[in-house]
Amino acid sequence: MSILKNINSPEDLKKLEESDLKNLSSEIREFLINSISKTGGHLASNLGVVELTIALHYCFSSPRDKIIWDVGHQAYVHKILTGRKEMFDTLRSFNGISGFPKPKESIHDIFGTGHSSTSISAALGMASARDLLEENNDYSVIAVIGDGSMTGGLAYEALNNAGRTNTNLIVILNDNEMSITENVGAMSRHLSDIRIAPTYINAKNGFNKFLKKIPTIGEKTGSLIEKTKDTIKYMLVPGIMFEEMGFQYVGPINGQNLNELIKVYNKVKNMQGPILIHVMTKKGKGYKIAEKNPSLYHGVGKFDIKTGTLPKNKDSETYSDVFGKTLVKLATMDKKIVAISAAMISGTGLESFKKIFPKRTFDVGIAEEHAITFSAGMATNGFIPFVAIYSTFLQRGYDQILHDVCIQNLHVVFAIDRAGIVGEDGETHQGIYDISFLSHIPNLTIMAPKDRTEFIEMIKYAANFNGPIGIRYPKGNPAEFSSDGDFKPIEYGKFEVIEEGSDIVLIYAGSMAQTAMKVADNLKQNGVCPTIINARFLKPIDESLLLELSKKNKYIFTMEENIRSGGFGSKILEFFSDKQVTACSVINFALPNTFIEHGNRNLLLEKYLLDEKSITDKILFTLNL
Amino acid sequence: MSILKNINSPEDLKKLEESDLKNLSSEIREFLINSISKTGGHLASNLGVVELTIALHYCFSSPRDKIIWDVGHQAYVHKILTGRKEMFDTLRSFNGISGFPKPKESIHDIFGTGHSSTSISAALGMASARDLLEENNDYSVIAVIGDGSMTGGLAYEALNNAGRTNTNLIVILNDNEMSITENVGAMSRHLSDIRIAPTYINAKNGFNKFLKKIPTIGEKTGSLIEKTKDTIKYMLVPGIMFEEMGFQYVGPINGQNLNELIKVYNKVKNMQGPILIHVMTKKGKGYKIAEKNPSLYHGVGKFDIKTGTLPKNKDSETYSDVFGKTLVKLATMDKKIVAISAAMISGTGLESFKKIFPKRTFDVGIAEEHAITFSAGMATNGFIPFVAIYSTFLQRGYDQILHDVCIQNLHVVFAIDRAGIVGEDGETHQGIYDISFLSHIPNLTIMAPKDRTEFIEMIKYAANFNGPIGIRYPKGNPAEFSSDGDFKPIEYGKFEVIEEGSDIVLIYAGSMAQTAMKVADNLKQNGVCPTIINARFLKPIDESLLLELSKKNKYIFTMEENIRSGGFGSKILEFFSDKQVTACSVINFALPNTFIEHGNRNLLLEKYLLDEKSITDKILFTLNL
Repeated sequence: MSILKNINSPEDLKKLEESDLKNLSSEIREFLINSISKTGGHLASNLGVVELTIALHYCFSSPRDKIIWDVGHQAYVHKILTGRKEMFDTLRSFNGISGFPKPKESIHDIFGTGHSSTSISAALGMASARDLLEENNDYSVIAVIGDGSMTGGLAYEALNNAGRTNTNLIVILNDNEMSITENVGAMSRHLSDIRIAPTYINAKNGFNKFLKKIPTIGEKTGSLIEKTKDTIKYMLVPGIMFEEMGFQYVGPINGQNLNELIKVYNKVKNMQGPILIHVMTKKGKGYKIAEKNPSLYHGVGKFDIKTGTLPKNKDSETYSDVFGKTLVKLATMDKKIVAISAAMISGTGLESFKKIFPKRTFDVGIAEEHAITFSAGMATNGFIPFVAIYSTFLQRGYDQILHDVCIQNLHVVFAIDRAGIVGEDGETHQGIYDISFLSHIPNLTIMAPKDRTEFIEMIKYAANFNGPIGIRYPKGNPAEFSSDGDFKPIEYGKFEVIEEGSDIVLIYAGSMAQTAMKVADNLKQNGVCPTIINARFLKPIDESLLLELSKKNKYIFTMEENIRSGGFGSKILEFFSDKQVTACSVINFALPNTFIEHGNRNLLLEKYLLDEKSITDKILFTLNL
Repeated sequence: MSILKNINSPEDLKKLEESDLKNLSSEIREFLINSISKTGGHLASNLGVVELTIALHYCFSSPRDKIIWDVGHQAYVHKILTGRKEMFDTLRSFNGISGFPKPKESIHDIFGTGHSSTSISAALGMASARDLLEENNDYSVIAVIGDGSMTGGLAYEALNNAGRTNTNLIVILNDNEMSITENVGAMSRHLSDIRIAPTYINAKNGFNKFLKKIPTIGEKTGSLIEKTKDTIKYMLVPGIMFEEMGFQYVGPINGQNLNELIKVYNKVKNMQGPILIHVMTKKGKGYKIAEKNPSLYHGVGKFDIKTGTLPKNKDSETYSDVFGKTLVKLATMDKKIVAISAAMISGTGLESFKKIFPKRTFDVGIAEEHAITFSAGMATNGFIPFVAIYSTFLQRGYDQILHDVCIQNLHVVFAIDRAGIVGEDGETHQGIYDISFLSHIPNLTIMAPKDRTEFIEMIKYAANFNGPIGIRYPKGNPAEFSSDGDFKPIEYGKFEVIEEGSDIVLIYAGSMAQTAMKVADNLKQNGVCPTIINARFLKPIDESLLLELSKKNKYIFTMEENIRSGGFGSKILEFFSDKQVTACSVINFALPNTFIEHGNRNLLLEKYLLDEKSITDKILFTLNL
């Protein structure tokens, strides 16, 4: 680490000779592998962009030149080069550095990212702002975006808008031939076509010189010549789609070749208008084990460097696993069941489903909006689409859920994975808004399971339902409270009474089951005997049971892993207000109305007073005990 | 109307000779102009698609063949041909037929639309479902989409996905060279390029025949020939972008030529894979006045056929007008103010702004997501973006508001136009969810003005604010309650006390001001003297004032033009629950938790009990008076 140890800012980097950079890249790879093996994190994507990033900071001057990292999990090298390498042992942990760019963390993180396909929009906004300035307007704005993110409609909207301007804007397309697993869609095929035709490049350069020499005189002649230019261009230019969209296309460039990158970056710096540089990188580059299986080493826990052995999480079955297995069983019996994913087949547990029912699996790419409207289309044609999307990414589909699915009351099932605190991915990825953005949508039913058995039953229930229905479930492993044979059948809109008590009522939603049971035990030890209720349905709520409970109890306490505002608890407040129930007080436990940073789930729940102890204390205090 | 009078279904249409269709098209035009001149509605776009639609129903068999109308305001001819012409005098009125396709209305309306760019996703979903069927799977699925809708990311996500499949899917690109006003973006330029080069077509056909004769032998040779094919294709094929995306491109076709349309439709019926037919139409076709000014006659009120005279709505200043004028004034003083619109410059009152500050106006096309993230980018670079988007279309940007603007706490101003009941456009366009989908987002401030003066002050306040802030305001003309010089300055998070009373409290949000004042008068006549409060801030709410009021009053009644669930009223319920305020009851008046159909605003408010009388009655009943 003789070079890296002296690099604490992009200025330090610029002092190096170009010949030192190759060694620096090796040191950074070693640093990344070592560091991530201890903390976990995004490995393969960062190994792929070592040279791309070094060359960027070598040729451009951040933060004056503005670099925006799409999604942002590939910004580790950028973080290392901008003064944060000493903090890498705290990566993605509570109070440590984030796994994504964060303006709060560094002036070099010019735009916060996390969700896909935002970078070109943000970059175009910055560039357009710069163009309005009368001075200090001679800097570059650069978006670095992966080929996977290019399937997102937002990226297209931005390309389409940028292509019409003459704004100086550089888009670096980091093409590793896969996003998290594999790319889907025509854009991906277009890129493959380019990859297999690298010989075009030289011819292109020659012809461009030739074309520039053709004089353009008179309108008609000019237009004819322009057509000829275009015609010849089509023959020779790869990246025709980008050219058609108004971008100058440069590439493909070998993204592991520092000299080539530096040459190209220095050249495009002084070019005018929107430019797309197509850089080919290899996920996992430099760590053989990850190169072979980049998907597996995309995001990892701690691992053994020599063997690549990852922590065994195969032992314990996650909610996503249960979802996938159950759906396979149901689909075996019902031909109408299909699965839709937005580039998250593996993350949502659909790998087996895809293997067994390849024709009934639709991976539409990073395109949540389309995933949902596509599902609406399938539903109108008699099929039962299960759309599995993480809570945080479902935010992208709010309008499609409301406008395309719910107004038409279509039978689409939303499998809302990673609902609640997600931990290490933090602020941009917390699944803590879904109850608030879904529960006011008419026609939509929302459920949340307390444990494994109930989750399976809910999936069955949703398959047999008729109308839009969502199941929200957390990251991690489900508990199991149900014993054989005593499962109370799910009834539409009915809560489940777990235990009848006499003093107060505890109603919990899904993932709060374990905490609620512990709180109940604590209360019993303090002489309070609560009625315990599992909400099952977050919408509609069980109005008749609630009315009944309100007559017998002075307090109802609700618990949910969602932001306080507009959550499950408020639905009960609204109902009681509408019915003018005043004798019974409703008190809601939920996450506070604030963004929640990254960190271990339990630590965060404690910090935000949604843990067993905080809840127990608050209840006892309320009861004057 | 000798032909049209006998057409009550697509079957009737098919009985006609091809030679009768031209006369039918004239009759339909006459019918459209007559009918819309009496009811108002979307005129220009429907006049443009008369032949396109007749030919569709002549060549295909709806509802077996499935036709999806993007946005759907151009589906009048489709409605006329599918048995609804007798109902056109009820168009867009309460209990009348909708201005958009509605599955509830007809089996021929296979997919409900209203928002832009959904049709290809829905069509691909239907086609993919069909392909899984073992029988009855020999029908066509057709999406009809305008060139304007093509700027939406959702359309791209769907094209991208479809282009990778071999599904039989027909996309008819209805290219009238403008969406509502003018198209922006590279896609639009691409289409213009095609338009100016119609001579390509013949050459293309010849070459395709030639290319098919080239044998493909051996892998290497084959690949070379394929490349050559591609190269030649680039020279000759317009619509290269669509071809690159995996679509077969057919066009451009003269959309006013029935014979050409019928020939092409019959041909593509039996073609395999995704096909895009590029049809050129003329907005307003056949009604000279509308042809000349298609924007003006896009959506109209009643008008005089002979002169084209539209109802004078220029006399009264709308909220949108006030917004535009005020922003011009502010922008004159502050160079940092910029305006962003998603293809709604005119609708949101930004026409003057655009004229005066063309460089500071950014019309990004129908691309709400991009509009917002683009604004976030501008804000990080020191500008003050005002993004003006209708409440209903802002639904598209939920994730961008949360993830790109609010997490970073950027100073972006959301001008949320058409908030509340919008009337004739109905179900898909009601602006009644914004408080619910925005008010739980941390860092976001939301205001609503009671009248013209307050609206102006709020725009100024938002310009000088520091952080994400939205102003929601309704369609129509603002009232004016403020008299000169008595305007109480806006203070962050503070409600405005309009009148101190003694018995109960009325708190209203924005557009409910007039109703609230009338309710207050009614109450006074019944001996109740309410404290009247204008909320001004819907988020954050005025906690200290609320606590104070709760001590002096037994009842607080709130009023808002938003869906009940998750609205403004709930925020007060949540606050009182959190603070355990029990002595004062809060009762919320809002729209019920259901989708709201089209119709006159006052009729709808009455129907849903949000009118002066219903509210007064309910309050008196509650007070036992």
